[in-house]
Amino acid sequence: MKNTFGQSVSVTVFGESHGRGVGAVIDGLAPGMEVSGEEIARQLSRRRPSSPLDTARQEKDPFEILSGVFHGRATGTPLCIFIPNGDARSGDYTYGPARPSHADYAAHCKYHGFEDYRGGGHFSGRVTAALTAVGGILLPALEKLGVEIGTHILECGGVRDREFEDVAGDVRALRNRAFPVLEEDCAGQMSRRILEAREEQDSVGGVTQTAIAGLMPGLGEPWFDSLESILAHAVFSVGGVKGIEFGAGFAGTKLPGSRFNDPMRMADGRVVTESNHNGGINGGISNGMPVVFQCAVKPTPSISRPQRTVDFLRGEDTELTIRGRHDPAIIRRVCPVLDSVTAIAVADVLAQRYGTDVFTRGTGT
Amino acid sequence: MKNTFGQSVSVTVFGESHGRGVGAVIDGLAPGMEVSGEEIARQLSRRRPSSPLDTARQEKDPFEILSGVFHGRATGTPLCIFIPNGDARSGDYTYGPARPSHADYAAHCKYHGFEDYRGGGHFSGRVTAALTAVGGILLPALEKLGVEIGTHILECGGVRDREFEDVAGDVRALRNRAFPVLEEDCAGQMSRRILEAREEQDSVGGVTQTAIAGLMPGLGEPWFDSLESILAHAVFSVGGVKGIEFGAGFAGTKLPGSRFNDPMRMADGRVVTESNHNGGINGGISNGMPVVFQCAVKPTPSISRPQRTVDFLRGEDTELTIRGRHDPAIIRRVCPVLDSVTAIAVADVLAQRYGTDVFTRGTGT
Amino acid sequence: MKNTFGQSVSVTVFGESHGRGVGAVIDGLAPGMEVSGEEIARQLSRRRPSSPLDTARQEKDPFEILSGVFHGRATGTPLCIFIPNGDARSGDYTYGPARPSHADYAAHCKYHGFEDYRGGGHFSGRVTAALTAVGGILLPALEKLGVEIGTHILECGGVRDREFEDVAGDVRALRNRAFPVLEEDCAGQMSRRILEAREEQDSVGGVTQTAIAGLMPGLGEPWFDSLESILAHAVFSVGGVKGIEFGAGFAGTKLPGSRFNDPMRMADGRVVTESNHNGGINGGISNGMPVVFQCAVKPTPSISRPQRTVDFLRGEDTELTIRGRHDPAIIRRVCPVLDSVTAIAVADVLAQRYGTDVFTRGTGT
Amino acid sequence: MKNTFGQSVSVTVFGESHGRGVGAVIDGLAPGMEVSGEEIARQLSRRRPSSPLDTARQEKDPFEILSGVFHGRATGTPLCIFIPNGDARSGDYTYGPARPSHADYAAHCKYHGFEDYRGGGHFSGRVTAALTAVGGILLPALEKLGVEIGTHILECGGVRDREFEDVAGDVRALRNRAFPVLEEDCAGQMSRRILEAREEQDSVGGVTQTAIAGLMPGLGEPWFDSLESILAHAVFSVGGVKGIEFGAGFAGTKLPGSRFNDPMRMADGRVVTESNHNGGINGGISNGMPVVFQCAVKPTPSISRPQRTVDFLRGEDTELTIRGRHDPAIIRRVCPVLDSVTAIAVADVLAQRYGTDVFTRGTGT
Repeated sequence: MKNTFGQSVSVTVFGESHGRGVGAVIDGLAPGMEVSGEEIARQLSRRRPSSPLDTARQEKDPFEILSGVFHGRATGTPLCIFIPNGDARSGDYTYGPARPSHADYAAHCKYHGFEDYRGGGHFSGRVTAALTAVGGILLPALEKLGVEIGTHILECGGVRDREFEDVAGDVRALRNRAFPVLEEDCAGQMSRRILEAREEQDSVGGVTQTAIAGLMPGLGEPWFDSLESILAHAVFSVGGVKGIEFGAGFAGTKLPGSRFNDPMRMADGRVVTESNHNGGINGGISNGMPVVFQCAVKPTPSISRPQRTVDFLRGEDTELTIRGRHDPAIIRRVCPVLDSVTAIAVADVLAQRYGTDVFTRGTGT
Repeated sequence: MKNTFGQSVSVTVFGESHGRGVGAVIDGLAPGMEVSGEEIARQLSRRRPSSPLDTARQEKDPFEILSGVFHGRATGTPLCIFIPNGDARSGDYTYGPARPSHADYAAHCKYHGFEDYRGGGHFSGRVTAALTAVGGILLPALEKLGVEIGTHILECGGVRDREFEDVAGDVRALRNRAFPVLEEDCAGQMSRRILEAREEQDSVGGVTQTAIAGLMPGLGEPWFDSLESILAHAVFSVGGVKGIEFGAGFAGTKLPGSRFNDPMRMADGRVVTESNHNGGINGGISNGMPVVFQCAVKPTPSISRPQRTVDFLRGEDTELTIRGRHDPAIIRRVCPVLDSVTAIAVADVLAQRYGTDVFTRGTGT
Repeated sequence: MKNTFGQSVSVTVFGESHGRGVGAVIDGLAPGMEVSGEEIARQLSRRRPSSPLDTARQEKDPFEILSGVFHGRATGTPLCIFIPNGDARSGDYTYGPARPSHADYAAHCKYHGFEDYRGGGHFSGRVTAALTAVGGILLPALEKLGVEIGTHILECGGVRDREFEDVAGDVRALRNRAFPVLEEDCAGQMSRRILEAREEQDSVGGVTQTAIAGLMPGLGEPWFDSLESILAHAVFSVGGVKGIEFGAGFAGTKLPGSRFNDPMRMADGRVVTESNHNGGINGGISNGMPVVFQCAVKPTPSISRPQRTVDFLRGEDTELTIRGRHDPAIIRRVCPVLDSVTAIAVADVLAQRYGTDVFTRGTGT
Repeated sequence: MKNTFGQSVSVTVFGESHGRGVGAVIDGLAPGMEVSGEEIARQLSRRRPSSPLDTARQEKDPFEILSGVFHGRATGTPLCIFIPNGDARSGDYTYGPARPSHADYAAHCKYHGFEDYRGGGHFSGRVTAALTAVGGILLPALEKLGVEIGTHILECGGVRDREFEDVAGDVRALRNRAFPVLEEDCAGQMSRRILEAREEQDSVGGVTQTAIAGLMPGLGEPWFDSLESILAHAVFSVGGVKGIEFGAGFAGTKLPGSRFNDPMRMADGRVVTESNHNGGINGGISNGMPVVFQCAVKPTPSISRPQRTVDFLRGEDTELTIRGRHDPAIIRRVCPVLDSVTAIAVADVLAQRYGTDVFTRGTGT
């Protein structure tokens, strides 16, 4: 299936960095679901480069809905959204010398030289604008069902934000943060580290933390389509993500079972756990606690320093200095993208479980 | 699709811990591929409880091939392998009190009380015997293509093994290790920690490291079906896995780009990287270096100490002391399971890329 | 996906005619759905050879449920049903000479000689026993939702049954007909023609007609997954089916639009059509009228007369006289198989539309 | 998956008759495959209304390739092709009265009134322009592999064309026929019958015949994904198709096995059959003979006469006279659409079998 994700709600992405534009087709939307241009624009604005922290490339993202919306609502037939490319400077790219840590050489092996290599082509972070636009449609629909998704930067440049506590409240607070952290003073510290990296012609990575609050228990499958499998599948679509862990994750492996296990109790007639080391998922199935996961985002590969690499066309070693405009850290901009792919995965799981009208009819429970 | 994984080579699992048995249907095998009962038995023996470290449940795993093999070779039509259950003691289980960190309550929400709850039912680690049997078919077929897969315990109970170095050599060495570590003296130390945990009526988790040596470059897709997505999807089917990271993973997020990026050079006419922080994958596509990933395996949830929990049938708090026979650490036994699900994912990717006869005809390159 | 059908309710078949047996895995059953051994046995008995009209091979079909049922109800996890082979005489088959109109040569091209050729192997009609068993589970579940499926022989050996009239009533009447026709005196006439064919060492084909009564309107998709696409996909799995037409089908193409179009009117508050030339489907979507389709079933390929053919191993012309035990007409036995594959397709469409609990919770409308 | 077809080569359609336009995303093209704007335009011109036989709506089909092509070749990443709508008159449509034999009422049941009903919306034949454009990419690629696809009108208005004889030659001859028949004098006769229908404010249907010449033997699966299943699935996406039969189809059911069975013989070292009653497919697998199938195309539902119907919004009977511009017969225009969906199905089957580079590397046999 390749560039398509999902069974009941499915998303197909297309486009290249320096071609006509990028876009997505979403199929399986509930007929009558609101599609708000403002929400899409708001979501896109969260991803847009907006400060010295980001690439100098100006992205206005004036999207066009080519199909699937009528009188401001989803028809239920495929919705195509297209974001034309504006400010692209193709002259900045040549073919042959591989940018280290980039897809260049791997893409060459797969596409035999026919790939549109300009600006990373279909591998470009530019394609995440399309994913983000999809999030602008699905996230508000999920909120109406009580499912709220948010991502913050947990760690960047040696600065660590606090973890989610009051998950639903924290998620709501993140919606309007230009710099998505929970402890607001982390924003300044992280920004400084990112600017320092830029000055050093270098880049930084970091760790994000995403929460899904309000998710119904009983979602996911025991094998192969565990909720962790589905979410990880979606999240690893995002370039630069090199790891995912649920709940206590890797640190949790150091705990003995007696401390890792989440004690359970009744609270207001609901089953809750006192800790959430399992990240809201047991045996692949949601347990009614918030689903929480962290992603490892590698440092931006494009740095301005000269790097040792190969010219794979000539088959020889070379040195490369990358020009063009790049983010010293993509981690701020990756947060709304993670919200969006999480929303895609959750929307699909819900529509499979409760049927294709779930977003207008609810779950019936 | 639920309990099925893969498009070109697809695997469906079925079965319960205390029912008739567990099994799998593999479809899309290349006609003529060898299916060796000995290899299946050998792979199953790697997963079998075999020492005081493991559960006291005796699993003989006398498998039966119900279809798809003729004169010792895959016919190319669906192969069903079935492993009848032997030594099961259903009396040890009741319904209502949720074992903390287990699927009990989540399963109740999904299956409304109709699930076979005895011994974890379809959630039981027993189902991994079926996955492991599939590995006994696919791993040797991959080896013939030069693709070799191995998993060792990187960390357990505070003891840390060395990482992969000579990847292909290390992978081969692991094949015959009863306790899968690279530094053999780690085996004793880890075993002691596991036995200590048992004595303390507790359990331990750990971190595994898996390598795929010899994988062709150019495999995977830029979006949604990135090689990381496919592998993570497969790996998170395995109960107890709570995290996956590729290459330098979470630790790598602390490096600046200038140190994270893998310098590239030509070596014997091939493109190689000097470090492998990207774990053999760039932009979702294999780059010809070994694919390396670590998995976080949580401590075994079943411990003999009394635990605070709920009886979800009565909707009240309770205390539970789990009886029955359990592993104080599943991490040793999870290694061949990870090899197997990795093999399933890789086999599918190869068959999609090179066609359904790839295992008998090769990749044609 | 190959030998798997369906997204939300999916079925995978396996097995060979002269191997250990045949079977199926059904995934996506609603937890709590009744699974009645008697209903499965009843459905299997409808397919069983039972008279001089059929093959002399005795098929007892003593099925075993290997997983997915607990206390007589579906757990919701994969259900594996297995039907061991009993009376198989492998000595009757050799490899090389292709039986005309059989899969022998085509299978050789696909499986390169590794296929289990005995008795048709995985191509054998024997595999339809597994499909029929699945029908024994799904058909009663559909009936509880008010969806009733039945198939009769519309034409065989020059004798023509009447078409469906009171569709739901006709469908119910068919359930207990050993020879599935609506006009009962057709049974004798058709039987005589089949016996005549056998005496002439020949075989006959025919046309079946299937109805789905009580299907909810609004099911199916405009493109690619039209209800016709889904049903045709399922039906063409059945060996020997060479055509399908919905409603007036091929004959309807001779009508002008003014006579083909089904006039619509209100009846008891529901929209109905006066004729049903569209077979209950418009634009790929069910319209609330019974879905009706006819299938062309070719004459049984195995006849006892000598036939001109090739020995594809030697690459030379030869003459072949088929021995073994064969039906002079499979059309009677194909009816319950068509009911079953129709049920599989409808169950999947319903579960996609209304969610995975549709069979226990209903459609919520 | 809904509006997506295919696993290895997959196509997603979107768009509405009176919206911004229609389009398709094709994924899985072999990198380096030629994509010729001229071939796309030529294929689109075959579908375009061009004479008094067709709708008066002018369709220029100035397509735009939004992604996936670089220097005239497929990159291998998703190709999006978009055909903006030009001459659309939305004033001609209202919501409530159902046009008989159209999707109006069925769509209302599915989409609850949120569908874009103007001009049939997503159900409009206009969407077949997108499918046809896809054919303009895949048909030339298949030809380079020696696989040639063509469709002619076998029967329309009581006039019958001859069947395929020299299949490859006939298919080639059809490429440049404005009116796709094999016996050229049928064109005039059929045209006259279509014009007569228009004068009578009526419409006609017909039967098409499609051939796939040069298809490799050994393609398709025994169960569920039989080649007939795959082709029928694709073909029933096309609105107005109500039946499909392979080879001798329904007429063949009247033959005894002794006459239906295709005698086999060696010819120039290849296995051939003397007749082709099986339509090139045995047991679901291609046998190396041309694949031949007929489709029943119902008469165009839109006729200018007053028709009895319901206003489903008011729930009452009414009479409707359809205005707007319509074809008295879509059968001429449906031929290139059938070529295209056949090409999509065959391309996917080939890429699954031989790998994703099959269109540039060949089948390796």
